[in-house]
Amino acid sequence: MGEVTGVEYKQISPADFFYRNRDIAGFSNPARAIYSSVRELVENSLDACEIAQTPPEIYMEMLEKEGAKSGTGKYVLTVYDNGCGVPKEKIPQCFGQVLYGSKYMLQQARGTFGLGGTMAILYGQITTNSPARIVSSAGDRWIYEYKLLIHIERNEPVVLEGYPMRHTNPNGWSGTIVEIGLTGDYPRAEAKVLEYLKRTAIMNPYSTITLVDPKGRLFRFRRVTTIVPKPPSPTRPHPYGSDVEMLNRLIGLAVRDGCKTLFNFLTRYFQRVGKRSAKRFLKFAKLPPDMGIGDLSPSETAYLAETINRFDGFLPPKADCLSPLGKQLLKLGIKKELRPEFVTTFSRSPSTYSGHPFIIEGGIAYGGDLPAGIKIYRYANKIPLVYDEASDVSWKVVHELINWSRYKVKQDAPIAIITHVCSTKIPYKTVGKEFIADRPEIERELVRGIRECARKLRRLLVKKERIKREQERRDLFLKYLSRIAHFSTKLAGREKEPDISSLLRKMGYEEN
Amino acid sequence: MGEVTGVEYKQISPADFFYRNRDIAGFSNPARAIYSSVRELVENSLDACEIAQTPPEIYMEMLEKEGAKSGTGKYVLTVYDNGCGVPKEKIPQCFGQVLYGSKYMLQQARGTFGLGGTMAILYGQITTNSPARIVSSAGDRWIYEYKLLIHIERNEPVVLEGYPMRHTNPNGWSGTIVEIGLTGDYPRAEAKVLEYLKRTAIMNPYSTITLVDPKGRLFRFRRVTTIVPKPPSPTRPHPYGSDVEMLNRLIGLAVRDGCKTLFNFLTRYFQRVGKRSAKRFLKFAKLPPDMGIGDLSPSETAYLAETINRFDGFLPPKADCLSPLGKQLLKLGIKKELRPEFVTTFSRSPSTYSGHPFIIEGGIAYGGDLPAGIKIYRYANKIPLVYDEASDVSWKVVHELINWSRYKVKQDAPIAIITHVCSTKIPYKTVGKEFIADRPEIERELVRGIRECARKLRRLLVKKERIKREQERRDLFLKYLSRIAHFSTKLAGREKEPDISSLLRKMGYEEN
Repeated sequence: MGEVTGVEYKQISPADFFYRNRDIAGFSNPARAIYSSVRELVENSLDACEIAQTPPEIYMEMLEKEGAKSGTGKYVLTVYDNGCGVPKEKIPQCFGQVLYGSKYMLQQARGTFGLGGTMAILYGQITTNSPARIVSSAGDRWIYEYKLLIHIERNEPVVLEGYPMRHTNPNGWSGTIVEIGLTGDYPRAEAKVLEYLKRTAIMNPYSTITLVDPKGRLFRFRRVTTIVPKPPSPTRPHPYGSDVEMLNRLIGLAVRDGCKTLFNFLTRYFQRVGKRSAKRFLKFAKLPPDMGIGDLSPSETAYLAETINRFDGFLPPKADCLSPLGKQLLKLGIKKELRPEFVTTFSRSPSTYSGHPFIIEGGIAYGGDLPAGIKIYRYANKIPLVYDEASDVSWKVVHELINWSRYKVKQDAPIAIITHVCSTKIPYKTVGKEFIADRPEIERELVRGIRECARKLRRLLVKKERIKREQERRDLFLKYLSRIAHFSTKLAGREKEPDISSLLRKMGYEEN
Repeated sequence: MGEVTGVEYKQISPADFFYRNRDIAGFSNPARAIYSSVRELVENSLDACEIAQTPPEIYMEMLEKEGAKSGTGKYVLTVYDNGCGVPKEKIPQCFGQVLYGSKYMLQQARGTFGLGGTMAILYGQITTNSPARIVSSAGDRWIYEYKLLIHIERNEPVVLEGYPMRHTNPNGWSGTIVEIGLTGDYPRAEAKVLEYLKRTAIMNPYSTITLVDPKGRLFRFRRVTTIVPKPPSPTRPHPYGSDVEMLNRLIGLAVRDGCKTLFNFLTRYFQRVGKRSAKRFLKFAKLPPDMGIGDLSPSETAYLAETINRFDGFLPPKADCLSPLGKQLLKLGIKKELRPEFVTTFSRSPSTYSGHPFIIEGGIAYGGDLPAGIKIYRYANKIPLVYDEASDVSWKVVHELINWSRYKVKQDAPIAIITHVCSTKIPYKTVGKEFIADRPEIERELVRGIRECARKLRRLLVKKERIKREQERRDLFLKYLSRIAHFSTKLAGREKEPDISSLLRKMGYEEN
């Protein structure tokens, strides 16, 4: 065989990986790139406002620099928010380093991959070679302004000379401004961008979002409430869903903290493991409570991971790491953007899939401004999912698992179904966050929630049908009763016709 | 607003990223994990054999260690190949570091992401905590054996104590053995694994692939030829598809090599840019040929990237970085595994989408052992794509763009359509390599290739129909001609009947 030439080995950085494979992060063509950039920056802004517990005020501008009227051109996208701001020293890495971010704790967040915002900046850079501009303040004395590029091969931010600049902050402004240049196709992306913003407005009714498009047109989605849902709080991991890697990390942490025995480790480093359930688990696993965690062998750790998942005595995870919108706010959001005749919402109690807590909420809207046909509005952690609907678990539930005729719903009824999955870990199947896998636990909760609303809708539809039938009956009575009265008066040779209004009133009708 | 607490910032390693998001790499459930592990290791082996130019001999064993008969259990998967081997000092990184690999050059390769094999090892480690075993030799004096784990938070290989071990290699064996322990659900994965191997055998008819399954059953896909297609050779990039990042990297390389002017840079660092086309391009871009490349400003580089893509005077990319199977070998592969009555194959000339060269080949098989209905066998760079068929460009072409009735093909005809996209860059939409995006250039070539074969199939079907009709006619003749002869002999009062066989022969029929 001998030596084989021509094989070169190389390590690439995560930034380089996503540069080479931008299709998988949602930047596959110029229209999609516009959509993804808007989306990633808006989601970062909404998360920043949630942390600050402020009703979001997001202002966004898309300017055309050089452009073909049709097709691809150059744009400058700027997004302003009133969120918590990014600390000065973290700005370069947050915006100029892939897989760096604040979203690696166990709590619900819009972003999942520590990737989105930086991908938008990376895409802008490779298409226009212009630096990103970041302006941010945490509401203290200073506002910092950066211009930076990403060194893709090293996955490192490169701050331009003369930056950061420091400005005074007389009004105590807190927030972030991100400005990027990018090549894209806004005309082809426009419909999706507006649809995305409208859907975002439904699920975030406490937000005001403004877009000024390249033609100077202003689109504003106004808030209808200033109530912001309780933010999620980071929590300890739940024992279900533990794997060897996670156990090793937790054990490392525990050993550094001076924790020694298995019993203490279980009760202190997991949620929902009290003294009783820890004892019962250790008995189940046939492990001594005072076993040292510092010197578990690899096979002992593997055994621990496996038995933890087999033991069925732990309580389900707590849901305070989740931040659903709630039935009332969701109803407000739906009414505001969809203007239906009727809306009902549901919110299921917390549940869990492979150790990850989740809550399903949603609703059904009917009539009013809604067009004919069943339309699904899918959400995950308050962000709308717009692409690849037919691969999503909600599509399966709505179109395959629910028998709409049982609820008197016809295929062309003007109906919108809203589904919202909140979880510390959404089981997306792609980096582009397009659709949710059909995990059986999620599917089941969705089915139950939608059925709950469908029953209410059925009551409405039955009532509407009855009213319609009675209306027809009344119309009939009104039409003939007076004639009957007229003719029978004649027949009886009388002059004065009887008063039929009391008769109608007795049957529950008011005269027109 | 004040200080916001509770926000932590953190960088995670690429290994950590894929550990947290294994769904997107195809390891979403125990059955899928078995399938993906087999697939990634087999593809690495096939690539290693291609580099060595040896007909692949791949032997694979799936042993059950502890297992539920139904559902999830523990397995040990071992894959042996006779490929080029991995150099001793590269083994730890190749198998224990995510985004490290030999697949970052501009040439066709099965793997795309430098991710697959290591993902299988990572998945095995987090589910069983056992190290991977790697044995490899380049065919020289020594065989090296490693046991290693991945330090996920650091994305670094950890070689176990006592390794690497060195063994003598008396027979000059070249190849690699990879052994991993993993949790999975083989019974549920079995059908997909076998389908995957069968499809691999079609597109790699020079390979022998053997699988011993957990029940000890042996499945062998034998080679029918020892002809191995010409391997792809790495090439310089084509100017179309250049972006700012790529130009900056190439300029960096050129400056280090002592190249100074734009003219020299264009002619030396790109394929298909000769002196004439370089001059014409520079005139088009209004740039001086002796412009220094060392001091281009960011906006000049951006301008260069943009004008290169707008100029239409470069020749299409060369295809020697591609390695299609070829019409003959493809026919062999199809006949071997599908056993049809008829098969015809096509191979289109090289074409290009956003600067990436590609070749489409494929074929149509009919009848024989094929079941009723049109079935598509999709391939990309010689690997079969099994999941999410309906999202693939081939599905669109076969089911939406081709009018099969024009080719006399009925919906229940026993037909297999094989499509194979070869490219330096397959536009996958997911990391799991499930389906190819419908880039218009790829779509067009697919339509043309399939139509070419469909016309040949049409000829066959027309001929078969004619033969069938004539067969019926002959049957009629045979049935009645002898009687007519008999009766007319009687009518004429003759004794001897005329010889009708010469009549039948004249009409092209032989007597039974």
